[in-house]
Amino acid sequence: MDFTLENVKKLIESNQGFHSTLKMRLIAYDADAGRLTVRLPYRDAYARIPDIGDYHGGVLASVLDVVGTFACMLKCKAMTPTMNLRTDFLKAPVKCDLIVTANVLRSGRKVAVADISATDDVGTLYAVGRGSWSVIRSE
Amino acid sequence: MDFTLENVKKLIESNQGFHSTLKMRLIAYDADAGRLTVRLPYRDAYARIPDIGDYHGGVLASVLDVVGTFACMLKCKAMTPTMNLRTDFLKAPVKCDLIVTANVLRSGRKVAVADISATDDVGTLYAVGRGSWSVIRSE
Amino acid sequence: MDFTLENVKKLIESNQGFHSTLKMRLIAYDADAGRLTVRLPYRDAYARIPDIGDYHGGVLASVLDVVGTFACMLKCKAMTPTMNLRTDFLKAPVKCDLIVTANVLRSGRKVAVADISATDDVGTLYAVGRGSWSVIRSE
Amino acid sequence: MDFTLENVKKLIESNQGFHSTLKMRLIAYDADAGRLTVRLPYRDAYARIPDIGDYHGGVLASVLDVVGTFACMLKCKAMTPTMNLRTDFLKAPVKCDLIVTANVLRSGRKVAVADISATDDVGTLYAVGRGSWSVIRSE
Repeated sequence: MDFTLENVKKLIESNQGFHSTLKMRLIAYDADAGRLTVRLPYRDAYARIPDIGDYHGGVLASVLDVVGTFACMLKCKAMTPTMNLRTDFLKAPVKCDLIVTANVLRSGRKVAVADISATDDVGTLYAVGRGSWSVIRSE
Repeated sequence: MDFTLENVKKLIESNQGFHSTLKMRLIAYDADAGRLTVRLPYRDAYARIPDIGDYHGGVLASVLDVVGTFACMLKCKAMTPTMNLRTDFLKAPVKCDLIVTANVLRSGRKVAVADISATDDVGTLYAVGRGSWSVIRSE
Repeated sequence: MDFTLENVKKLIESNQGFHSTLKMRLIAYDADAGRLTVRLPYRDAYARIPDIGDYHGGVLASVLDVVGTFACMLKCKAMTPTMNLRTDFLKAPVKCDLIVTANVLRSGRKVAVADISATDDVGTLYAVGRGSWSVIRSE
Repeated sequence: MDFTLENVKKLIESNQGFHSTLKMRLIAYDADAGRLTVRLPYRDAYARIPDIGDYHGGVLASVLDVVGTFACMLKCKAMTPTMNLRTDFLKAPVKCDLIVTANVLRSGRKVAVADISATDDVGTLYAVGRGSWSVIRSE
């Protein structure tokens, strides 16, 4: 696979497996900064209680993981499976789209480290993530 | 709400919101040890690539979060929203059911700490989680 | 105790207990941003191997913890013992002073969350921390 | 260097750099389990406030880091610098020796994962750690 923005966009927006639940759209990538931004439009399927519309923590952790993974993949031009991820839940988002942005802090030969944040369209911060990704280059 | 095992079983096995995707079954609870065990039967909807059947990391993190949350709730007899969770992905499970077990390490007045692990039926360890949960007692 | 900058400066720069090893100096505090900056001048006592002068990871984790703790204390005007801290070691600093900056991401009634980074004087990033602090108000 | 128990014992108990502050003694190693145990006898230099004798969090995080590092080194027979470490502070130890035990959960070709706990001699649990270590084999 070529690690182009076009291919990564297809993977993020694909409708197979768990991504058929997490319906994300790539909205920006800044290659110099190693910063990738994705939108997750709200759906009742993401709620703890659909009548309330409060996001389930697992959905937040999942989308932070995905955006961190693909930011590392684009930066490292390699497969980058997640090694570990810490998610801090600061405030529960309710019935709003999420804007999720990952910044690659370090991209080494074997490991990448990234920060991820989830906000709404007006910048309210709901969750932050930090993790390590393994860098797997085909030889 | 009464924080009985029966009520927690209903919440875990409910079919609303994100739990309509994560179809879990409570299989054991040891009140003395503060240890809760849940089964997640494999579904293609959990895969990164359904033809392969490899679990998406977000599904693993989500189920660790759920089991940790309800173990804390049962132990603390209180609402226990997740404050933070670190997940370490040790090995990708493929097309197997997951057995997810949470142990409450500390249950304080304001905060609980729990460890969670995900294995298959023969004990292969796939992922471990550790996190903090806020303890919210209605006054 | 009053949680003034003057008192916090005394605690950080005190020479008792473990702070007699970690000889830190408070260099800036931005109350609006909740951002505290501390300098740790290099000493051989911080090295893994003094001839090399490479910082021991424990020293990095310790100073990140201290700066996070006092940033939360200043922001919350309360005692703020550390609940948990994740430290990511990005690059080993060698024989340089460290500039350690903490930003409070969330200051709630019971818990605060902060990010901390350690750089040298020219901005090279060596380590980042993220953690939760308990907020203990005397009633 | 040969990664023998004898050599690791010398490194842990060495009196150079930061280990001249952290005066640890290796007390057990179970090679099959990948489990290393170290004792840290209490000293006032580890306290936040020596009159109280409460351990500074940085000392706890440091000793968890050291024991995790050397457990990974012994298991992997390689240099294993710490990539990241999460420490959860459950209860502040006061004027007691610490017994710190690390278990290697995964020892891969490039990365190891370990759990660490700190107790006193009667088993009271004070802190737990979990982290990733880079595995650096000289070629």
